[in-house]
Amino acid sequence: MAIKLYDTLVFTSTNALRVKACLAEKELDYEVVNLNTSNKEHKSPEFLSRSPFGQIPAFEDGDLKLFESRAITQYLAHAYPDNGTNLIIHDPKKMAIVGVWIEVESQKFDRSGSILAWELVYKPKFGLTTDDVVVEENEKKLEQVLDVYESRLSESKYLGGDCFTLADLHHLPVLKFLFGTKAKRLFDARPHVSTWAAEIQSRPAWVKAITA
Amino acid sequence: MAIKLYDTLVFTSTNALRVKACLAEKELDYEVVNLNTSNKEHKSPEFLSRSPFGQIPAFEDGDLKLFESRAITQYLAHAYPDNGTNLIIHDPKKMAIVGVWIEVESQKFDRSGSILAWELVYKPKFGLTTDDVVVEENEKKLEQVLDVYESRLSESKYLGGDCFTLADLHHLPVLKFLFGTKAKRLFDARPHVSTWAAEIQSRPAWVKAITA
Ligand SMILES: N[C@@H](CCC(=O)N[C@@H](CS)C(=O)NCC(=O)O)C(=O)O
Ligand SMILES: N[C@@H](CCC(=O)N[C@@H](CS)C(=O)NCC(=O)O)C(=O)O
Repeated sequence: MAIKLYDTLVFTSTNALRVKACLAEKELDYEVVNLNTSNKEHKSPEFLSRSPFGQIPAFEDGDLKLFESRAITQYLAHAYPDNGTNLIIHDPKKMAIVGVWIEVESQKFDRSGSILAWELVYKPKFGLTTDDVVVEENEKKLEQVLDVYESRLSESKYLGGDCFTLADLHHLPVLKFLFGTKAKRLFDARPHVSTWAAEIQSRPAWVKAITA
Repeated sequence: MAIKLYDTLVFTSTNALRVKACLAEKELDYEVVNLNTSNKEHKSPEFLSRSPFGQIPAFEDGDLKLFESRAITQYLAHAYPDNGTNLIIHDPKKMAIVGVWIEVESQKFDRSGSILAWELVYKPKFGLTTDDVVVEENEKKLEQVLDVYESRLSESKYLGGDCFTLADLHHLPVLKFLFGTKAKRLFDARPHVSTWAAEIQSRPAWVKAITA
């Protein structure tokens, strides 16, 4: 198969899941290559030649090799315009607004969100102790981000505008994890955020991605 | 003037400088609106309506209002294809490679690079004490990033391929600051990184941006 996604079965990688969400929206078939990260297979010379920081996911489409989940989703959105959901907008001014919220996810939401997922989901799973101070600090940061989202989502249905785009999609993996923790209350407390989070998590492509 | 950049004179904002670098490469005229950040003008309702996290830069092009420096540079590169330097590539596979290195700057280089700039440049300027432990930790992280860059730049002249693109441009502000500190030795120790860093910092548009 032309498209390959390098993932692991040892843990659920939020970053690989971001790419799976995009592949499902674009209705693209792909092969999953699962690395044995317990054996440090992601630090092998072969894998480092695909993903030089030794991180999951890596991606292949024919002769094209990529890493960094958000670069992969951008590629899929641009290279397969006629498949499945259109996740970008061709008008440069409208796309610029989508671009702003893509950056906000990466620069703001993901920073506190990923730390909370690590502390509240992965650490307990790996038998490590959650650091409550880190949780509190990052819940505060996440609340500031969600306050901005609440205001944004009171004026537009999705972060980037009227349509679901990469800006929303990029949030899905961390959102899913946080929804299984006490941090869910931070989303519940904000009505527009809460509606948005429920709606994007109920998309058939996302349901398919997390059960694939 | 149609294009406005919201900046400050109180300190040199690396993130505003990223946009200035792009405006100079695109040979676009613009007006600078300097906020008095000492008076918290960047936390005023007027400015928060432009940049909801109360951060510099904000940007305006006619009726379009943007924030997040990397979203602004993406907009300029796409909306003004015929001005100045072409900072993106139209072929989706070649652009995907540029996209990977745009992500690496944002996800890897900037994280340690900005912390080092804060500890080694801004803190001394603001009369605060540099935390040596934080410096050491982030120098180690930056070295890992620069090792990956050294290998990448031994096979292609620029990070994204044969041409200078946004992937290189996004590094310029933090690079400039770190070059005035002891962290410069981490770049000097890597020949391909060192050649690349010298070459991109000598671009006439960059020289214009930092003296504007
Ligand atoms: N910015 C990268 C992050 C990739 C990442 O952090 N991957 C994690 C799994 S979700 C990983 O491979 N961790 C193992 C390691 O860093 O050694 C992306 O978006 O793809
Ligand atoms: N990710 C944002 C970061 C913006 C940012 O951190 N701006 C700094 C100045 S360089 C700022 O406004 N700091 C003041 C504050 O956060 O209150 C971007 O790339 O534009």
